Parts: sequence; C-alpha cells; structure tokens
Amino acid sequence: MEKYKIQFFPDNKVIEVEKGATILSAAISAGIHINSSCGGDGVCGRCKVIVKKGQVASLPTGRITLEERKQGYHLSCLSVAQSDVEVEIPKESRLDSRSISEDDSYMLRLKGIFSEPVDVDKGESVVSEEFFIHSPLATKLFLKLPKPNLDDKISDLERIYRVIRAFQDIPVLQTGIANIRRLGELLRTSDWEITVTLGKRNGTTEIVIVEPRDTSGRNYGFAFDIGTTTISGQLIDLNSKKILGTKAAFNKQASYGADVITRIIFAHEPDGLEKLHHVVIDEMNRMIQELTVEHAIDLNDVTCCVCAGNTTMIHLLLKVDPTYIRREPYVPTANFVPVIRAAEAGIKLNPRGLLGCVPGVSSYVGGDITAGVLACGMDKTEKLSLLIDIGTNGEIVLGNKDWLISAAASAGPCFEGSGVTCGMRASKGAIQKVKIDPATFDVQYETIMKVAASGICGSGYIDIITELLRAGIIDRSGKINGSLIHKRIRDGEYGKEFVIAFKEDVGTTGDIVINEMDIENLKRAKGAIYAASSMLVRHMDLSFDNLEQVFIAGGFGTSVDMANAIAIGLLPDLPSGKFFFVGNSSLIGAREIILSHDALFDADAIAKQLTYFELSVEPNYMDEYVAALFFPHTDLAKFPNVRF
Amino acid sequence: MEKYKIQFFPDNKVIEVEKGATILSAAISAGIHINSSCGGDGVCGRCKVIVKKGQVASLPTGRITLEERKQGYHLSCLSVAQSDVEVEIPKESRLDSRSISEDDSYMLRLKGIFSEPVDVDKGESVVSEEFFIHSPLATKLFLKLPKPNLDDKISDLERIYRVIRAFQDIPVLQTGIANIRRLGELLRTSDWEITVTLGKRNGTTEIVIVEPRDTSGRNYGFAFDIGTTTISGQLIDLNSKKILGTKAAFNKQASYGADVITRIIFAHEPDGLEKLHHVVIDEMNRMIQELTVEHAIDLNDVTCCVCAGNTTMIHLLLKVDPTYIRREPYVPTANFVPVIRAAEAGIKLNPRGLLGCVPGVSSYVGGDITAGVLACGMDKTEKLSLLIDIGTNGEIVLGNKDWLISAAASAGPCFEGSGVTCGMRASKGAIQKVKIDPATFDVQYETIMKVAASGICGSGYIDIITELLRAGIIDRSGKINGSLIHKRIRDGEYGKEFVIAFKEDVGTTGDIVINEMDIENLKRAKGAIYAASSMLVRHMDLSFDNLEQVFIAGGFGTSVDMANAIAIGLLPDLPSGKFFFVGNSSLIGAREIILSHDALFDADAIAKQLTYFELSVEPNYMDEYVAALFFPHTDLAKFPNVRF
Repeated sequence: MEKYKIQFFPDNKVIEVEKGATILSAAISAGIHINSSCGGDGVCGRCKVIVKKGQVASLPTGRITLEERKQGYHLSCLSVAQSDVEVEIPKESRLDSRSISEDDSYMLRLKGIFSEPVDVDKGESVVSEEFFIHSPLATKLFLKLPKPNLDDKISDLERIYRVIRAFQDIPVLQTGIANIRRLGELLRTSDWEITVTLGKRNGTTEIVIVEPRDTSGRNYGFAFDIGTTTISGQLIDLNSKKILGTKAAFNKQASYGADVITRIIFAHEPDGLEKLHHVVIDEMNRMIQELTVEHAIDLNDVTCCVCAGNTTMIHLLLKVDPTYIRREPYVPTANFVPVIRAAEAGIKLNPRGLLGCVPGVSSYVGGDITAGVLACGMDKTEKLSLLIDIGTNGEIVLGNKDWLISAAASAGPCFEGSGVTCGMRASKGAIQKVKIDPATFDVQYETIMKVAASGICGSGYIDIITELLRAGIIDRSGKINGSLIHKRIRDGEYGKEFVIAFKEDVGTTGDIVINEMDIENLKRAKGAIYAASSMLVRHMDLSFDNLEQVFIAGGFGTSVDMANAIAIGLLPDLPSGKFFFVGNSSLIGAREIILSHDALFDADAIAKQLTYFELSVEPNYMDEYVAALFFPHTDLAKFPNVRF
Repeated sequence: MEKYKIQFFPDNKVIEVEKGATILSAAISAGIHINSSCGGDGVCGRCKVIVKKGQVASLPTGRITLEERKQGYHLSCLSVAQSDVEVEIPKESRLDSRSISEDDSYMLRLKGIFSEPVDVDKGESVVSEEFFIHSPLATKLFLKLPKPNLDDKISDLERIYRVIRAFQDIPVLQTGIANIRRLGELLRTSDWEITVTLGKRNGTTEIVIVEPRDTSGRNYGFAFDIGTTTISGQLIDLNSKKILGTKAAFNKQASYGADVITRIIFAHEPDGLEKLHHVVIDEMNRMIQELTVEHAIDLNDVTCCVCAGNTTMIHLLLKVDPTYIRREPYVPTANFVPVIRAAEAGIKLNPRGLLGCVPGVSSYVGGDITAGVLACGMDKTEKLSLLIDIGTNGEIVLGNKDWLISAAASAGPCFEGSGVTCGMRASKGAIQKVKIDPATFDVQYETIMKVAASGICGSGYIDIITELLRAGIIDRSGKINGSLIHKRIRDGEYGKEFVIAFKEDVGTTGDIVINEMDIENLKRAKGAIYAASSMLVRHMDLSFDNLEQVFIAGGFGTSVDMANAIAIGLLPDLPSGKFFFVGNSSLIGAREIILSHDALFDADAIAKQLTYFELSVEPNYMDEYVAALFFPHTDLAKFPNVRF
C-alpha cells in the first residue's frame, strides 16, 4: 500500500498515512484536533485546512468559498492526499482547547451556587452547608494506634479497625490485599502513627489508602462535568472545601461527531470506543496534572473524583459500550454506576483513589441533570421551580421537593460557542457583553478577562441578537435588513453578515461576524428550548406564571443578561427577580457530592424520583417549536414585556 | 565470576551457578526439590545427594556414613561445586510430592466429619447439614430477565439487581466495572438469559461473574488446608456438595525450612517472601489444574476457594510479610483476612473467582484451628471436648459451646512422616498398620492401597512403637534391647535399629527401618502433645476424666489405632468410646465454610471466642514434658489400662 507523509502546521507534526486516508483522519491519528461537528460527513464545514504543498483530491463542497479555494482551503474530511503534503490548520479550525487556568479570576465568579462572586482567599465555603454535612467521598483520618503488647495482641488490621470504629460505627469496613500487604512494615516504621483514607463505596466503607504519619491535612479531589461539548474540571481541597482551581476545555470527542448520537455510532467502529474513551480521560488527566502542578499538590494526595455527565458521556468515560442507548427501547447499561477505583477508568490520581459518577435517570436524562437539580436545591424546596440547562442538549427540569419531571430539547452547541461561525467557549477573549448603537450601528463589547476579542460566547450572542433586533438590523425572523447600507453589513458566504469586530482592530485572521446562518442556528436553539419548557409546563397543567423560580444553567458566559435572554425568546417573559443564573450546575452538583456523602444520597433520590417527558413523541411539540422560531415568538402575547 | 554447570539426575536438568553456590541452592534455583528440614544448616541430614562426576568441596558432617561417603554421598547444603558436576538425588532425598490422585479411594474414607467411609457415588452429603444451611461462598443464579420495553426502561445493571432482589433481600449489591462493561452486549446476545455468580464478600454481596445462558449447574470450589508440612486440596461441587476429588502433597516450602520460624526468617531474605509464596500457590494451582482436568471441569466454573492454614501459612499464601509474627509481641498483620479475588493471590481459577481464608486467632493459633473446631462442632456442643490436631505444631483445643481455649506444642513433623528416617506422608505405599510377633519378631504390616511398602506414615509409627514395647524389643525409654540377637535388630548410624521391611522384599533402595533416633523423635513429639493436653486441662481445673469427647485430627493415616496411641502415651488413657478420629479437620472446616456462609459466621465467632494458653511461659510445662518422655509416661498411674 502506498503511503504519504502529511505534515501539519503550526504543530509541525508529521504522520505517514495510507493512500486514501482523509486529511482529517490523518490529523486525528497524529493527535492533532481539527474542528468537526458532523463526524466527517462534509456537512458542517468546520474542518477547513490550507494545503501548502503537495497534491490533494477533494470531493466538491459548497462549504469552501471561491476566495478560500484560491488560498488553498480544503475541507479536511473530504480531502485525500495524492502525494506527501504540508497542511496548515487555520486558527478557526483549531479546537479551542486552551484551559482557562489563566482566567481563574473569571471562574471564581461562578463558584457560588448562584454564581455570586466568592473570594476563595477569604476561605469562604462555596457549598450550601445548610443542606449537607461535610463528609467527602474520601476522608483522611490520622490515627495514633496504641502499640501492641503481650496483653493487646490483636492483628494490625483489626487494630486499625478498632480505632476507626471508636470514632464512628462503621459496620462494613473493607480493605484490599494491597494495603494489607504493606501494613506490617508501614505501622512499625511509622511508629504506629498512620493516616487512613476512608472511602465511601456503595454502602460500605473502604480503607482506600494507608500512609505513614499524618497526611490528613492534604486531601484533594476533582469534580468534573463531562459535557458533550465542554469538559470542566475543578480541584477541591476536601478539608477546607475550597475550590483551588478550575479548567475547562472542549471535549475532543467532537472530532468524532458533534452530538451523542454520532459518537455512539462511532463507538461501534473498530477502536471507536477506545478512542472516545481516551480523548476524554486524556483531557481529564491533563487537567488533573496541570492543576496539581500549579498548586504544588502531590498526585498521591488526590484521593477521589466525582464526574457528572450525560448518560452517553459516562458510558464513554467508563469505556462501557453505549450502543443500546440509541436502540429502542433506549436502555443504558447503568444509571447508578458503583464507585470504582479511578485507575480502572484510566484516571490518574492516587493509584487507589476513587471515582464516583453522579447517578442518571435514563438514556437521555443523565447525571448532569441530577447534579443540576441537586445544585439548585430543587429537591428541597416547596417553590415550584424550573431549571433550564442550556447545553448541547437543552435539559429542562420542572418541579419541587414533591415531584420532578424533565424534558430534553436538541438545542445544539451554539450557546456553548460551537456550531456558529465565530463562536467560542466562554473563556479568555470571548465577547460576552455587547451593545449596538441603534443610530450609528457602532458596537461596544466586553471580553472575558478584557483582552482582545477572539470570538463570541453564548451570552455575547444573546446580547448581539437582542441589539440587532433593537437597532432594526434584523427582523423578528432573523433576516438582516437588506436595505441597510453600512460598513458592518455585507453579503457573506452564509447570507448577509454583520461585523462585530474588524480583524484590524482585534488582530484576528478574519473579522468577527454574525451571519444569517448563525442567527438561524441560534433561533432554532432558543426555539427548541423555549418550546420544550413551554410543553413541559403545560404538560403539568401549569403556566409559566406559576413558576416561583427559574434557574438558568450552562456554559455560555460568566453571566447572562436575563432581560435579553427573554427578549430573544430563549426564556419566558417573567419578572427578572425569578431568574437565577447558576453557571455550570452539573459541576456544582458533582462538587457537592465529592464533599458530602449526604449529597450523593440526595442525588440517588433525585435520580429515582425524576420522571421524563418524551417530547419527540408529542404531537404538539413541532407546532410549538415552529411557533418559537421568531424573535421572541410568533405569538407576541406570550412576551408582553418585550418591546423593540 | 566463574560459573559451573550442575546437572541433576534423575531430572536431567542443568543449571549454571556461580562458584561458591551450594548444590542445595542450585537445586532450588533449578526448581528441583531436595528434602531439607534445617534450612541448609547441615543439621538434619535429609538433603543427601550422590556426586556422579566432577569435583565438590564439602564441609565435614557426621550425617554421612563411611559407607555412603564411598558411594559419593554428600550433604547438598554443605557441598560446593569445584567444577561442572553431575549429581543424583536419591529417592530418600526427594520430596514426596506425588499427589494422591491415584488413591482417592483412600481419601474417600476421610470425607465424613468423623471419617466414616462415605460413598460419593451415592451422592451422600458429607457436611453436617444439621449445622449449616447450604449457601456457598459463591452461588450461581440463573436469571431470565424481563426484556426492557418503552414502559420498563431501567438500566441493564438495575434490571439484574431488581430480579436478584426479588429472590432475596440483599441491601448491598456490588458489581465491578469489568462486568458492567460486558453487560450490554452479553444480555442482548444471550436473549436476556444469564447466570450471575453471587459472591459473599465481607458483609456485602458481589456479582462476581456474569455469563450468558444457564451455567448454574456448573459451580465448583476448592477447599485447601495449607499445612506447614502438607498441603491438601479438595474439589467440591458447590451445588451437590459432593467432594469430587482430593489431592495432597508436601509443602515445598520445607526446602526453605522445616518449621514456620525458619520460613519467617527466610521470608526476610531477598525474594524470600516471593519464593515461599510461589511454591505454595504453584502447588495449589497444580492441584486445581489436575483435579479439574480429571473431572473435565472448565476452570471458569471454579468460582471460589477457601483456605485454612496457620497464621504464617496464610500470610505467605497472600504474600503478606510474616516478620512480625515472630517478633515480640507476636502480632500478625491480619487474622480476619477479607475475601479477595483469588487471582490477587495468584491462584488460578475463574479470573474473577473469590478466595476466602478461615479466620485465625493469633500468630500461633491460626485458621486451621478455627476450622478444626468448626469441623468437630465443639462450638455447638454442651459436651466438654478436647481436639488434638497432630501436625508439625501440635494444636490442642479444649472447651464446648460456652468457652474454648487452645494451646500449641512444638511436636515436629514426625507424625506426618517427615523428620524420621523412613517416614512418608500417608499416601500410597505407606505402612499404616503393623503387628510384630512377640515370639518371632516377625512383622506383619498393611500399606495404603496395599502396594509394596515404600515408607512408614504416622499411624504406622504409633503401631510400631506399641508393638516394639509389647514384644520387649524397646524399653519404656525407647532404647532397643541390646541383648537381643535377631536379623531385624542391628547397629546403625543413629543407634540401634529395627528392620520393618527388607529392601529385597519391597524393592526399595534401602531397608525400611526404625532407629533409636526416630524413636526418640517420636517420643518427644508424643510427649509434647501429651504434656500440652495435660497442662491445658489442668489449667482449667479439670482432669482428663472430665472429658466427654476427644477428637483426634492430623494427617498421620487413614485411621489410627486409638488403643495404641494411648499405649505409647500420645493420648490420655480414656475409654475408647470417647475418641473420634477426624482426619484433616482443617480441610473439613474449610469445606464447610465454602459450602455455607453460616459456617463462616461460626468460624468468625470461634476465632473471636478462642483464647490462648501460652505454654512456653508456664513454669511447670518443662517438668510435665520431661515426665512424658517415657512410654507411655513416667507416672504409670496415669495410664492404668496400659499393660505390656
């Protein structure tokens, strides 16, 4: 078989591939990530590369403009090398995999349950202590054991058990043989002063780690939210409950498909499951590595982690075949995953450290929703509450302490900054707040960490659409007014476009724009979420007016202008005091669980209690959705307070 | 470093060793076992080899006769190669490692609690069912799961849990990630008909194995007794409770030291623990392999094993450092060892199969004693009972259901056929019953499986001493009457000796004899056991006459002539109806535990209840022991019914 060398820039990596391999698959083999939302079907147009040298054969596509073609642009998924080639991956095709270690100051604002700014340096607790007693998944206990003598000769292991049980009545204590093997020498060389890490495992307590001397002051854990589009990880001091740092990155599984369905299909290909599993744990391990190095924490002192994610993400994390999630009757292998050793899933912390997964409800209502309900305390309140988690799947939960029901809307990843022309994750340089002068069309914006803009995040898009409507630049259907003549308004590849920032001003390779296709995508996303919320409320014979509190969760920015989110019809038209921006509720829930076993009990209860309302089989859903494909809605009576 | 090749016969194995290595260490490195009771100190004289070719330098020893020296005999532990050499290991120096697969018919007689002959073909149960409900350590359950549908969409794992819990209320059910990973496909390819193996693990229940279709008819386990001198293994059908086969072999750890103390010391040498661990598990794996092949059983259907052994043996089995067992205050690492995966200890059955160890009491009262008490039902009876387990350590337990106390006497391995000139394990060819005509000194004997004699086992020695006393050939101190002239009586290397069988008659390389040193060893062994029994009974302010039943356990033969055991002063002089020969009580107890979780509970209770009487610190023990160094005893009033 003939082979060609493909050299990628700016990575400067070379890989040899067999004739016939696409540039995209070559990049994946080389460990280089190129954006791709359609799984290599040539549909999304996000995997553009520039061929610098050599011959490639490409299938025809409308996703490359004539201008781009002249510059050597190709869709990497449709292009096959015909010789050795050199390929450049332009900035816009590179996955935004920067961690947000630099902009922790931004993430700090998300630390409270309701994203009130919390100053960790002052040591404020970030978990609602009124709900949960502090009892981490893994607790360290420093023990000074009485030395054995001729009158007290019980064995080493029983000696430890005896002292632990003097602290607390633990009926089922377990210890693995690896710890038992080390015990004799360890106890005697440490003068009978040891630290045991007690892990909560499925109704039992395990002596997970035994260490010499007192290490009880050093006990750390990681909370993870494993989203379809974004992975977030948080290093937590399990003693002080302080968040020491947070990182987020795009889920590189996106290279294999934008949504869970395409990934489940990919998992069935040879090595598919392995690949999907490894890109996730590699990312998690990188976050663990970086955050522990930054905080000078020994990896051995990281004793546990808790992951929240949708059911497919958790299956892939654990390398469990997700095939049956998408086959009728849509049954996952496990919703309540037992606590296992993190190493069994390939996660690198203390080799004996534990991994817990937040329990899920069903194939399409995962532990991320359970964690979200937990984070908002919906299961504890009398108040009728609605949680809207705007992720790639828009997840909606309605209820209170007596009942909980959920629905899902296929929103797509736009509000996470994916699937839109100049979208980016809510990280450094993302345009997050926007004002447009209705007279001059001048644009004022604010970026995260106040550096030069490099793209637009979810909250930025909400503002932009509101401002475009307010300025009359777009109509309620989202079309840009063709009669307007302004330097910011022009024809583009995907309909008309409006320039938010010119490349000369911000130093990007292209202007930062929003075009009619972006607006269409955003409209569909908001429409799907609104329609789902509306259907769910109506299904329970309620109206939006009955809601006493509405929690908004998602990774679209550090905060959201609720009035604008109402104005575009994403959220129902309710008094602003009813809205609470939660941020990443899935991550908050995972953190609550790692910090408190009671929270895990509550999560179990939520997962058992939560029912699911399947929208796709509801005859009215499509009408409701189509009616929502206007800004704010076809029926303006639903938005009495929205005026442009 | 200069190296020499050492070739061993009859194995025909060659090993290259560095100059200065002893022949014994070369043999050990080559995996060839040579008898050795003193750990290579040149004391026991059991490691004789014949140098056929080449030069060796040997330290002087009195253990090689002039005659032997002429024939090229050397003590392998004291001999170092000076050139390439060829060495023959004579029959008497080779460990008797023959398994007793050929003579199962003999072992069958040991199967009942009290060694009543049991015909397994008739399917008789061998465990006292009145005590224990049948509930094996690992139970197979065939499940026909209801298929999921749109109205019943709980996950695969919860579906299994739900059905199991419909059978039985199991609060804590555990499943490892390896089983969860297989679940989705396994359930669907087996049409939702699966067999789960439920294992009892430390207060929880684990789904140990999941298999397609109905395999519940095939569930097997192994009971092991791991003795200092002998390892016995038994294949058990966990459904029918039938014993399918038994094997026994010398514990090859003997190459590294005859008793637990020398082995604990050896464990501290480089790789010492590894070596001791591996020779045991290799033997166990060989037994498992052979018995499963003989009975056409798939190793995957062997789901668990239970081991009884003294505390040192269990530490070595699990590769736990035994160092602290022999250091004051004599504390083991664990007496109650959790149930682990057998593979974690290197035992090869189903890769996920379980290993349980019978709980022990202390460093010197191990799980073998707990198992023995369990086997005899001492913990259930009102009757005042004494258990004498005659192993390398003579273990004695006194008590009933209200209290239990134990003591240990260092008896040595003579009654197991080790440490005596012509001793052998109670296996095929062992002389087990002996009559000597007081007039003619003619010897009549019976061997196990009635083949030509190759040595003498414990019960044979008991008969021989009794008969020698009865015939006036030896006096009560064990000295052979020097005035007797008979072809069977002659001077030997170790004092006078009496020929039991001439080599011409049986085809051995030498005559089968008993000499004064053997008699001395046997006298010390029986004296130690008698003195310990006596001390223990007196310690409780009782006398032997108070005993209502006496259980005799040990590997000295298929049965013991109790009257003779009394005659030599091994057992107290009580009516024969009070004695019960149990056989290998440790193995029986292990079998009870593998067959019933209730038995494990009882064993836990026994181990917690059993107290220990430390003889070595008792001022009267030495007097008592010295007084017992006569046949039957210095004080004949203690044996009113013994007359010669």
